[in-house]
Amino acid sequence: MMATPAELDAMRRALDLALRGPRGVNPQVGAVLLSPDGEILAEGWHRGAGTPHAEVAALSQLEPGAARGATAVVTLEPCNHHGRTGPCAEALLEAGVARVVYAIDDPNPESSGGSGRLRAAGVDVESGLCADEAHALLDSWLTVQRLGRPHVTVKWAQSLDGRAAAADGTSQWITGPIARADVHRRRAQADAIVVGTGTVLADDPALTARAEDGSLYESQPLPVVLGERDVPDDAAVRRHPLAFVQYPGDLEATLADLRTRGVHSVFVEGGPSVAASFVREGLADEFVVYVAPALLGGDLLALRDVGVSTIDEAIRLTFTHVERLGDDLLLVATLSEASEGAS
Amino acid sequence: MMATPAELDAMRRALDLALRGPRGVNPQVGAVLLSPDGEILAEGWHRGAGTPHAEVAALSQLEPGAARGATAVVTLEPCNHHGRTGPCAEALLEAGVARVVYAIDDPNPESSGGSGRLRAAGVDVESGLCADEAHALLDSWLTVQRLGRPHVTVKWAQSLDGRAAAADGTSQWITGPIARADVHRRRAQADAIVVGTGTVLADDPALTARAEDGSLYESQPLPVVLGERDVPDDAAVRRHPLAFVQYPGDLEATLADLRTRGVHSVFVEGGPSVAASFVREGLADEFVVYVAPALLGGDLLALRDVGVSTIDEAIRLTFTHVERLGDDLLLVATLSEASEGAS
Ligand SMILES: NC(=O)c1ccc[n+]([C@@H]2O[C@H](COP(=O)([O-])OP(=O)(O)OC[C@H]3O[C@@H](n4cnc5c(N)ncnc54)[C@H](OP(=O)(O)O)[C@@H]3O)[C@@H](O)[C@H]2O)c1
Ligand SMILES: NC(=O)c1ccc[n+]([C@@H]2O[C@H](COP(=O)([O-])OP(=O)(O)OC[C@H]3O[C@@H](n4cnc5c(N)ncnc54)[C@H](OP(=O)(O)O)[C@@H]3O)[C@@H](O)[C@H]2O)c1
Repeated sequence: MMATPAELDAMRRALDLALRGPRGVNPQVGAVLLSPDGEILAEGWHRGAGTPHAEVAALSQLEPGAARGATAVVTLEPCNHHGRTGPCAEALLEAGVARVVYAIDDPNPESSGGSGRLRAAGVDVESGLCADEAHALLDSWLTVQRLGRPHVTVKWAQSLDGRAAAADGTSQWITGPIARADVHRRRAQADAIVVGTGTVLADDPALTARAEDGSLYESQPLPVVLGERDVPDDAAVRRHPLAFVQYPGDLEATLADLRTRGVHSVFVEGGPSVAASFVREGLADEFVVYVAPALLGGDLLALRDVGVSTIDEAIRLTFTHVERLGDDLLLVATLSEASEGAS
Repeated sequence: MMATPAELDAMRRALDLALRGPRGVNPQVGAVLLSPDGEILAEGWHRGAGTPHAEVAALSQLEPGAARGATAVVTLEPCNHHGRTGPCAEALLEAGVARVVYAIDDPNPESSGGSGRLRAAGVDVESGLCADEAHALLDSWLTVQRLGRPHVTVKWAQSLDGRAAAADGTSQWITGPIARADVHRRRAQADAIVVGTGTVLADDPALTARAEDGSLYESQPLPVVLGERDVPDDAAVRRHPLAFVQYPGDLEATLADLRTRGVHSVFVEGGPSVAASFVREGLADEFVVYVAPALLGGDLLALRDVGVSTIDEAIRLTFTHVERLGDDLLLVATLSEASEGAS
């Protein structure tokens, strides 16, 4: 990787510009155009689906011909597909750009190939500058590209013996306040929270992310209800700052639709039937389990049947994080490599 | 606590002597008789139920009258009851002992009171010398006195979702080799292992404590089978170095009988029905739970119903130890104070 000090400065600036765009269906991308002697000619960033890509936004600042011989510094490989905006590689070629420096490759097979197109046309192309920073910036979007759907975390609280509630259905509270505060922090980090109608009807959850004083966190997840039963008129979820969306229950279709809404991460909060469905269909990437120091016995399991009939079919996980939260334990696990894709 | 250097040395010697006696129904006790100028006159230790107590064993080494004016240094308060051996307090008085130094009080209301009896007769009595060491020596015996029965640890292995086996009953192996080795070390530390006939018939466990190379640990727990069904002629438990004992299933009676056999600690290894019975009857003091990073779903729970009908009746525990064992987790919990005795 060969880059000039001016290009490195320009990439850092492009990363900052990228953040001005929304986190959503499309990636956050920034671009800076440099003159051959390293002066900034123009800047641009992607403002979201349907708007110009970052490179084109930067080019559009300039008079025709002003980018001839320039260097384009971009946080993501210029695209090569005819979407709503036309391929950026073409736009850069037409503008006469002589050199392109970008941070990370476009992971999407439909839009990638821009660097090859540019090189074939004689443009000097360098990749990998500030790749770690660009990866961090696009982490959740890259995950969506890799999985082909939003990342799914399934969360539940259970007694040590794996129950979600006592025999009569009472469950408030299995876990203590420190564990519950942790749930709210994780809600605030997710783009959407999913629950089944069973939980809506039984527990009437608000599905907001709240600080310990009860105030709402700035970032609120989109509330999602799965199931055909109606959400009652007086349900707490109707008072959520974001209007809830309801899907009948096809999980793949639900995740696909959420993706089109710009959702990168989904936090499934149950109940036990919905959680088990995500696991059974191989759509659970991460597990966040709060274990209370209590025994409940009885039939109300935290996770229903997951379609395993014999021990060799066990869904194998890896514990990635174990923490005491007050009297409770937090166990975080991910699908282990052997189980991944085996669904 | 006032004690001379000679008395301190004598107490250390008495603690060593105590260890020569067997760990069993009766406490391990040692005694040293010192002349008024601090010379050792005689030593004794308790050799087990039905044999003389340590003080009497020491006195019996001497000619009549030789202990007049002597100091008796004993690890446990001299007894005051008429058991099979007559009260030690009387024997010390009759021998003309002038001073008694002991480490810890006798916790048993039937035999305690020896120090009061001695003081009332004008003997100079000191207690508390090397109390910590004596407590450590008698730890498990003192626990049996406090509980009125052996200490019970209930152990199980479960998937993260609280299952003991897959739907078809297969369970080898839920946990990995490091967790299984930990089980064997804990077996070797217990006086008895208890399993139900259900487990004997399903899994045919050997109930031995084995090192990783398969060799037997020196100390082996007494194998105990609960239930009325016959143990098959070819069952592995019949090849255990200790002959197994079988009880029909009354847990209090079982523990009482095990106590008379000198059992201080019981390791309950299941299955799920037997484990749940111990919990339901308030006879489980400690829980050793191995949690595997796997999901199994299905009906085969690691712990059956424990008689809790609503959340306020939850059996509350305290996590005392959390450890990663290879890919698995070990969670150790004890009954929390609020739940204790609430059964
Ligand atoms: N311990 C915990 O962490 C925790 C968390 C949440 C809830 N809970 C407890 O769980 C209980 C409710 O359990 P539940 O199992 O009835 O509730 P649930 O999982 O929230 O809801 C199940 C319902 O969701 C709908 N659904 C839509 N798509 C589905 C799919 N793909 N798979 C499964 N269900 C789908 C169906 O409703 P329709 O019939 O409407 O289509 C189904 O009956 C309550 O007692 C609650 O307190 C515990
Ligand atoms: N994951 C683990 O840690 C673990 C450990 C052990 C076993 N297991 C699995 O558990 C399964 C066996 O389960 P299980 O529940 O049938 O076995 P269990 O608990 O070993 O045995 C139950 C039997 O014990 C007898 N019993 C005597 N006193 C009892 C009492 N007070 N309470 C309850 N039972 C008493 C009864 O037999 P009678 O009819 O003969 O009187 C009863 O049917 C096997 O599949 C085994 O693999 C798993």
